Amino acid sequence: MPPFLRRYLPILDWGSQYTRQTFESDALAAVIVTIMLIPQSLAYALLAGLPAEMGLYASILPLVAYAIFGTSRALAVGPVAVVSLMTAAAVGNFGLTDPRAIALAAITLAFISGAFLTIMGLLRLGFVANFLSHPVIAGFITASGILIATSQLKHVLGVQASGHNLIETLGHLLGNLGQTNFWTLIIGVTATAFLFWVRKGLKPLLLKSGVKPRLADVLTKAGPVAAVVVTTLLAWIFGLADRGVNIVGDVPRGLPPLSAPSADWEMWKALIGPAILISIIGFVESVSVAQTLAAKRRQRIDPDQELIGLGTSNIAASLTGGYPVTGGFARSVVNFDAGAETPAAGAFTAIGILLAALLLTPLLYFLPTATLAATIIVAVLSLVDFSVVRDAWKFSKPDFFAVSATILLTLGMGVEVGVSSGVVLSIFLHLYKTSRPHVAEIGLVPGTHHFRNICRHKVMTDPAMVTLRVDESLYFANARFLEDYVYDRVVGDTQLKHVVLNFPAVNEVDLSALESLESILHRLKDMGIKLHLSEVKGPVMDRLKRSHFLEEMNGRVFLSQYDAYMALSGNATLSEAAE
Amino acid sequence: MPPFLRRYLPILDWGSQYTRQTFESDALAAVIVTIMLIPQSLAYALLAGLPAEMGLYASILPLVAYAIFGTSRALAVGPVAVVSLMTAAAVGNFGLTDPRAIALAAITLAFISGAFLTIMGLLRLGFVANFLSHPVIAGFITASGILIATSQLKHVLGVQASGHNLIETLGHLLGNLGQTNFWTLIIGVTATAFLFWVRKGLKPLLLKSGVKPRLADVLTKAGPVAAVVVTTLLAWIFGLADRGVNIVGDVPRGLPPLSAPSADWEMWKALIGPAILISIIGFVESVSVAQTLAAKRRQRIDPDQELIGLGTSNIAASLTGGYPVTGGFARSVVNFDAGAETPAAGAFTAIGILLAALLLTPLLYFLPTATLAATIIVAVLSLVDFSVVRDAWKFSKPDFFAVSATILLTLGMGVEVGVSSGVVLSIFLHLYKTSRPHVAEIGLVPGTHHFRNICRHKVMTDPAMVTLRVDESLYFANARFLEDYVYDRVVGDTQLKHVVLNFPAVNEVDLSALESLESILHRLKDMGIKLHLSEVKGPVMDRLKRSHFLEEMNGRVFLSQYDAYMALSGNATLSEAAE
Repeated sequence: MPPFLRRYLPILDWGSQYTRQTFESDALAAVIVTIMLIPQSLAYALLAGLPAEMGLYASILPLVAYAIFGTSRALAVGPVAVVSLMTAAAVGNFGLTDPRAIALAAITLAFISGAFLTIMGLLRLGFVANFLSHPVIAGFITASGILIATSQLKHVLGVQASGHNLIETLGHLLGNLGQTNFWTLIIGVTATAFLFWVRKGLKPLLLKSGVKPRLADVLTKAGPVAAVVVTTLLAWIFGLADRGVNIVGDVPRGLPPLSAPSADWEMWKALIGPAILISIIGFVESVSVAQTLAAKRRQRIDPDQELIGLGTSNIAASLTGGYPVTGGFARSVVNFDAGAETPAAGAFTAIGILLAALLLTPLLYFLPTATLAATIIVAVLSLVDFSVVRDAWKFSKPDFFAVSATILLTLGMGVEVGVSSGVVLSIFLHLYKTSRPHVAEIGLVPGTHHFRNICRHKVMTDPAMVTLRVDESLYFANARFLEDYVYDRVVGDTQLKHVVLNFPAVNEVDLSALESLESILHRLKDMGIKLHLSEVKGPVMDRLKRSHFLEEMNGRVFLSQYDAYMALSGNATLSEAAE
Repeated sequence: MPPFLRRYLPILDWGSQYTRQTFESDALAAVIVTIMLIPQSLAYALLAGLPAEMGLYASILPLVAYAIFGTSRALAVGPVAVVSLMTAAAVGNFGLTDPRAIALAAITLAFISGAFLTIMGLLRLGFVANFLSHPVIAGFITASGILIATSQLKHVLGVQASGHNLIETLGHLLGNLGQTNFWTLIIGVTATAFLFWVRKGLKPLLLKSGVKPRLADVLTKAGPVAAVVVTTLLAWIFGLADRGVNIVGDVPRGLPPLSAPSADWEMWKALIGPAILISIIGFVESVSVAQTLAAKRRQRIDPDQELIGLGTSNIAASLTGGYPVTGGFARSVVNFDAGAETPAAGAFTAIGILLAALLLTPLLYFLPTATLAATIIVAVLSLVDFSVVRDAWKFSKPDFFAVSATILLTLGMGVEVGVSSGVVLSIFLHLYKTSRPHVAEIGLVPGTHHFRNICRHKVMTDPAMVTLRVDESLYFANARFLEDYVYDRVVGDTQLKHVVLNFPAVNEVDLSALESLESILHRLKDMGIKLHLSEVKGPVMDRLKRSHFLEEMNGRVFLSQYDAYMALSGNATLSEAAE
């Protein structure tokens, strides 16, 4: 079989060694994940501002696509909280009201994001995800968690409220607090309390009362389903809908519909930006959980192939009435703990959700949205983690600045502004840091061949010669800094005859840096000062040879700084700088 | 006098030592620059799509402002070609037709750009200019030169043509070629030819015929004035205006008007982006010429104070009916060669231009725009220089890529898209380069304490231990690369017990890199492998101590790689990798 097939179709790898035993573990994992995914998929569709069934549709074919193209053995793909929130923001920009139009926008978003991810994967551009700094992502996820939880409060209270940022949403909530619906509040609060208890208190209890760990796990994961079943029954029996409790209502029964992205170029233009953000955020999240889980079993995942896996999943979503999906953290961990051994587990989960779409949807009619909101709130609060802010503060101020800005901007101005500014800011801060490389004026340690910083050690220096050691590669952002540094040092120093640039730590010189070296050279020439280089690394020397710099130089290139010192220093004296 | 006054008002420095002799040199330089500036200021206003007098207004108060706040002794501020082109582009975006509205937009642009520069200066943000790589700027200037020259052809031919990019403009030109005006063509072509000759041929001729060099200089600089005078007389005598030759027409006589930026927020929103681009491009150009000239006399310029100097000049322009200004390259060189010793020369030039505005404007009525176009064409073609493309190709492919993209995008999509994409691209390429640091697996050179790359040398290695030397500081863009690198190396290697990361070349570790180190650690733990560090630099060690990484580590931190090797390697063997 041609190797590129193996690369682009990982299923051929694990599929060929698929055994009955593997099947059993995958199937069990699939059951547990299905139980967990049904309420989640409905809830996240609600969070994305879409009809509940789109959550189910997004959890069928996309999982199959990932099972074929994905490289992670444990990643569970489907609707996730943050991406659903970003979908809501992106689709919300259109201010659409017609549900069909809203669904079409979400489908188009999934298609663009899928195409983008797939192309990135084919071009092997997985590394781009590295340009998002960890603290920015962490801050963004935390802020999103808060935004999501608040956005769900309206369902728990049974009031109207909207807004893409915290202030707006809270404003609406407080404004409409008066219209709180008693029954909705009861259901919402008890469901939330119950789910928190299930998460924290249930498992230990079961274990104490002698239930097998594996079963206890399943039961715990089934918590949301229990909440759904009970509250649905209550709503049905007591006709809570007539008491103003908001229920899911008609969920079409049957196979996912065939769908296609919009052909409206205006809509594409408006969605491309958000789609790229969603793709990259989704990819980074998904790839890091996939890598963590793979590592536990000494397995490999291929980030570029992951792009293709997630890309095809999103395209699959857009073709079957779904919306943007990615690998979910909690879900994948469950899948892994439940013993999933291959991506087939995902395919089996898809079958589970398909059955739900075929059989259970009528039963969801009376399901109170407050219950779904409760499952979301309990799920996302685990995303909220401010420790990164504290760590950043302790560890490095620029990172602290980037993460705080990301959190505040996400809360204050919404997900899109938040994450984009975080990325720009972290790149800017990095350029800023490297734009001021460490440069030390060095002299000879008496009786040795070593050179040290004249500010820190008693060393031999010569008034006619200055040696500057540059501790960073030279590129456009720090080239002019060196220019100014050299210039500040030499200007007005009339005794000076020689400037030596000591390059042991310079790994690279780009064209901007070359031009700065040239202007340093020309300025020194104008001042009648000679420019020399010492300890230039091989690759840098090769680079310089490709330019005219070495011919134009009025000084020499010394192999060692000691040679330079011996050749250039006439009457060296011991520096007084020390102590 | 308080030091901050000295810093923010450089005039107090040189003003206090101002002598009669300094005055004489400054005055002479001012005369020459004035002669050069009068036609240029009219021409560049034309290029910016503004009434000619705005060029004069932009050459009066702004020069005084710079004389007070600027730090360069030779920089000649005023309208320049590239900034005029960018002004045309920015103002053109509004599609305005009413001349007063157009003038107001240009005035507002000058104000925003002035405010931006001044604030940058007060915040000491001069370093931001370093984020523009030299090749990107060079490519942008070259492309702009071509755009400007083509944009002026319509005046030489006397036809209608517009467009913000090369294709549009050429298209219009060719389309309207039929309407070429014979007399305009004659004037345009002869003026251009004459000016080229003056530039290349006149000075040697004068010197041969025994004219003093200084005088020869003045006469050469007076070329454009001669062209203006002669063609104006011809247009007047032969009534060329009636023969379809486009003339400047009424230029209001008198002092510059008082003006103020628009209060229309919509206009501000549309102009802020272009204003920032204009400011940064103008600043970078101006500061590099200022530095070059200052160096020739061992003087200093302060980039942050330059921002304030140029900022106040632009604010001054916006208050007196001008448009964005900056330090002109050719003009400053002339000013310097003519012997300008202090910024006072600029103030004297302002007086010269003021007199022109008061006395000469009526004489400009019959001046053919073709003549002004000719002066622009001859001036800007000196900006066009493709050598940077060749140098970049020879020197570094990423730089070549950035510069070519900048040139093509500027020509094809206009100045704003061109320069912005150039900046983004060069930053992206830099991140890409540093996102793949050099990592070498090293072993012990037998009989020494040195460690070398196992791929290049015959060294001692131990199957139970792998040592990786990282040759770059670790930050978010390359953190995950190291994660994958280590992971690829260890996965499936069942003999492995120890991984040593050798950090002599790691100058910095940011929070993202710390988190990558932590996930490397946790993955290795999951695999039952110990992680060790060796030769960690002091600052990096201090950083790590501020985190929990060192406590969590299952391995040790060794001062030298040799210690690590001695402690960890059980049965080392000579590697076969060599040769």
